[in-house]
Amino acid sequence: MTYCVALSMDRGLAFMSDTRTNAGVDSISTFRKMFSWTKPGERVIVLLAAGNLATTQAVVSLLDERAKASHDRSPSLLETPSMYQTARVVGDLLKEVIAGSVPAGQSQDAFGASFILGGQIRGTEPRLFMIYPEGNFVEAGADTPFFQIGEIKYGKPILVRAFDPGMSFAEAAKLLLVSFDSTVKSNLSVGLPLDMQFYERDSFTPGKQVRVNADDPYYRTISEGWSDALKTAFRKLPDFPF
Amino acid sequence: MTYCVALSMDRGLAFMSDTRTNAGVDSISTFRKMFSWTKPGERVIVLLAAGNLATTQAVVSLLDERAKASHDRSPSLLETPSMYQTARVVGDLLKEVIAGSVPAGQSQDAFGASFILGGQIRGTEPRLFMIYPEGNFVEAGADTPFFQIGEIKYGKPILVRAFDPGMSFAEAAKLLLVSFDSTVKSNLSVGLPLDMQFYERDSFTPGKQVRVNADDPYYRTISEGWSDALKTAFRKLPDFPF
Repeated sequence: MTYCVALSMDRGLAFMSDTRTNAGVDSISTFRKMFSWTKPGERVIVLLAAGNLATTQAVVSLLDERAKASHDRSPSLLETPSMYQTARVVGDLLKEVIAGSVPAGQSQDAFGASFILGGQIRGTEPRLFMIYPEGNFVEAGADTPFFQIGEIKYGKPILVRAFDPGMSFAEAAKLLLVSFDSTVKSNLSVGLPLDMQFYERDSFTPGKQVRVNADDPYYRTISEGWSDALKTAFRKLPDFPF
Repeated sequence: MTYCVALSMDRGLAFMSDTRTNAGVDSISTFRKMFSWTKPGERVIVLLAAGNLATTQAVVSLLDERAKASHDRSPSLLETPSMYQTARVVGDLLKEVIAGSVPAGQSQDAFGASFILGGQIRGTEPRLFMIYPEGNFVEAGADTPFFQIGEIKYGKPILVRAFDPGMSFAEAAKLLLVSFDSTVKSNLSVGLPLDMQFYERDSFTPGKQVRVNADDPYYRTISEGWSDALKTAFRKLPDFPF
């Protein structure tokens, strides 16, 4: 499994993904699930991947090849006129890769994958999309300002409660780490290291990128501090009046 | 869906279940999922149910009938010599009901159900079991002192962090309500009212039983208080050092 989150904030976009992949509990590996493409001063595009690793790697490799050979007839991520068209390119490619992988007569479920796509192209606002295995997609808005893919349930309650579109990147990094820590503590299929990336609105240049390892001192502070903080908060609530 | 939790504590057992059932989001109903049988001074048995409602109701009706006609040849919950044998009776009946419901050649998945069974019979310790659709079961122990069935993921992180076998029933009620509130806030298929029941070790009489409605003042205190407490705890953690 996998856990990826992207937040759409007033200041820009924040992304986090884990790196664990597994084909059964006895076959665990570490793979990056966060990818980005930049044309400095003009666009920054970030992609988070969940699902069948062969499918997501094929999509990312094809996007990479197209970005490098930009005079190819196929649309490149670095040439699309809008984030909407960028999401269409990724969605179409995903659908195509899945269709090409499924043996005749079989269900495509095992080959499925989904993406979160975020970024900004000069002249437009930063936008965030969730792309489904069918190739269609939805966009984040003021009512639903974040997307999660993969093993989303454990880390959702804190996002629902503590996310605030006005928060700083430093607060967003803290929120993402708390959400991931809750997931990692409850589910073996999500694991460290974690990749984190930020994009500041109208900067058109990649923001801070961080890889967080299990022995990262800030991660340990958050992980232990959050356990203690939860216990303290819990103790402070009134007991049931028997 | 459903959410049920049972805790095995030093003082006894604590149980909580929601009451929402749904066949699609346009067909929502309220059904009790917590059942108990008592022989005062000798045994108390509590059952929590998740899964296909027709299956769980059939099992509970049959258990009820057998308990009332105790001279029947079928084993009654009020006659079993141990909690282990009680779990076998429930597991065998569950397997039988499922087998009788599945049309020939179809998978039994849609008819599946699972139970948490807890209680105490005089002369033995309080015990807690999780019973699978296949009729087999596992028992809680010191390392895994609680069981969840149904929509378990949202409410697991707080249980993992705040459960303590030495806690009082008043604290256990608070913990259960926080875990349920996190689930209800994130998932439409789990809903109020909630049923709560306690069993005090060696009492052989049913403990406090409470139905918690959405307008219950204590529930509102916990629900709002926990949101505030989480936000405060979150703010107190150090921000990411950019």
